[in-house]
Amino acid sequence: MSIKTKLKERSARVEDYLRDCLEGKGFPKRLRQAMEYSLLAGGKRLRPVLLLSFNKLLDGDTDAALPFAASLEMIHTYSLIHDDLPAMDDDDLRRGRPSNHKQFDEATAILAGDGLLTEAFGFMLDSALERGLPAGVVIQAMRMMVRSAGCAGMVGGQMADMEMTGREDVNLDQLRAMHAMKTGALLTASCSCGAILAGADLDDLRRATAYGKEVGVAFQIVDDILDVTGDEASLGKPVGSDEAQGKVTYPSLVGLEQSRTMAEEHIAEAVRQLDVYSGPEREFLEGLARYIVDRVQ
Amino acid sequence: MSIKTKLKERSARVEDYLRDCLEGKGFPKRLRQAMEYSLLAGGKRLRPVLLLSFNKLLDGDTDAALPFAASLEMIHTYSLIHDDLPAMDDDDLRRGRPSNHKQFDEATAILAGDGLLTEAFGFMLDSALERGLPAGVVIQAMRMMVRSAGCAGMVGGQMADMEMTGREDVNLDQLRAMHAMKTGALLTASCSCGAILAGADLDDLRRATAYGKEVGVAFQIVDDILDVTGDEASLGKPVGSDEAQGKVTYPSLVGLEQSRTMAEEHIAEAVRQLDVYSGPEREFLEGLARYIVDRVQ
Repeated sequence: MSIKTKLKERSARVEDYLRDCLEGKGFPKRLRQAMEYSLLAGGKRLRPVLLLSFNKLLDGDTDAALPFAASLEMIHTYSLIHDDLPAMDDDDLRRGRPSNHKQFDEATAILAGDGLLTEAFGFMLDSALERGLPAGVVIQAMRMMVRSAGCAGMVGGQMADMEMTGREDVNLDQLRAMHAMKTGALLTASCSCGAILAGADLDDLRRATAYGKEVGVAFQIVDDILDVTGDEASLGKPVGSDEAQGKVTYPSLVGLEQSRTMAEEHIAEAVRQLDVYSGPEREFLEGLARYIVDRVQ
Repeated sequence: MSIKTKLKERSARVEDYLRDCLEGKGFPKRLRQAMEYSLLAGGKRLRPVLLLSFNKLLDGDTDAALPFAASLEMIHTYSLIHDDLPAMDDDDLRRGRPSNHKQFDEATAILAGDGLLTEAFGFMLDSALERGLPAGVVIQAMRMMVRSAGCAGMVGGQMADMEMTGREDVNLDQLRAMHAMKTGALLTASCSCGAILAGADLDDLRRATAYGKEVGVAFQIVDDILDVTGDEASLGKPVGSDEAQGKVTYPSLVGLEQSRTMAEEHIAEAVRQLDVYSGPEREFLEGLARYIVDRVQ
């Protein structure tokens, strides 16, 4: 079975959960529609799949961790909705469809994002309240989520990205630091929260975190490469939008070839973290890491 | 000592905590400035004071509950920043100063709101992780917070408010239901979370919740009255802005006199909830309830 098929198989479980999770909660209709429009727009569900996979690798109860995994996708989705707003990146398209504020309106898009972020914390809590994960463990994992989604993570990274846009003097270290916050932190938290929720010891947690960090860097480099070499159909947005928006990228700083080499090195380092494990979960996580960089070979 | 002085005395503790709580966390400078601009803009700190007061009334450890109390003010502040945005209520003034997006810019204001909301959950967790409150109790209180701040609460209420604005067929029940979500839920959660964090039994929790609900309704009615009868200096925004924005209010539906009577009835019901308690906390909570409605006598 190809890694793409395996990924799809695993994300189906997350997809099912996401499809029903906002039902029957008494949310205003238009608000719920706007939230579901973006939450159920496809996507690889990479973050929840990473959480569940590390959780399983370390013998966790993945049924109990499922709401927590889904909350990662909600936080990811809210960030996309807000980033697309006219005052931010001003993107009209997302995954080949009108972005949230184009399909609805700006006010609804802001509130749909706020709602997804707030409710995401509710689903994390449900891992303890409804699925029986130990309260202390859930609190620890949530602290990690706040750190990675908040001002020293994703929100701060988006701020740094906006401050960098249009500047010509950005160097590789600054670019790396920005991406580590903007996209790396949440990908890393996906892995480490999977480990924490499995009750992992410090060594396992360290390896999950390192894997997440390396995959996160590679993921961003590949994203930058595809913005140059990809096609609009598979990207779901126009090619070259980074350059058009005046964004510094890995290819713009070190060239395409060097960017590819860097991505491969980070993936190799991610895979090295898995050395001590064996079995199907290890194979899946290795395949997933390689798949990310294979898209630009 | 007047209730106003007592309120100020108690809010000073919250103020001190809020002043330092974003320091040394590695947040991007402009983001932190924008967050602090709105977070430290004064205000009565009613929500955290209510939490701490119910916590104390029920023999809780208010030092341990302080980060949780502060998180209420962060959530309240984020909601004000987002509500003021051009796509929402489009308010240029807040507490007599330029609103966040006027002082900074729209993108920064959106991110400052997102950041405050996310970090607020971090401070709730700190009540368990750093101040020793039992993890299970903190999880329960956080669930209450999500419910009141999320799509069945504050965010949903703002959505409902926007859908009602400009409509002429809104009745009293719809107005009540909208306010119960938009402002009532968070005020109620302030009281009930104070009780939960003190390890309260179900009867105490029920009374705290009822007090919060009644005070919340009265608070909103008074807010609507002041928008008609107040002066710009003490409101910090132009008089009559509700009418100018096409918002239905209590005075517009039932008149000023009837609105005042309704506010008094709700305050009387709130005070009745305190009947079983005695001592300085009970007195403070009674004084606070009466103070809210006294502003429009």
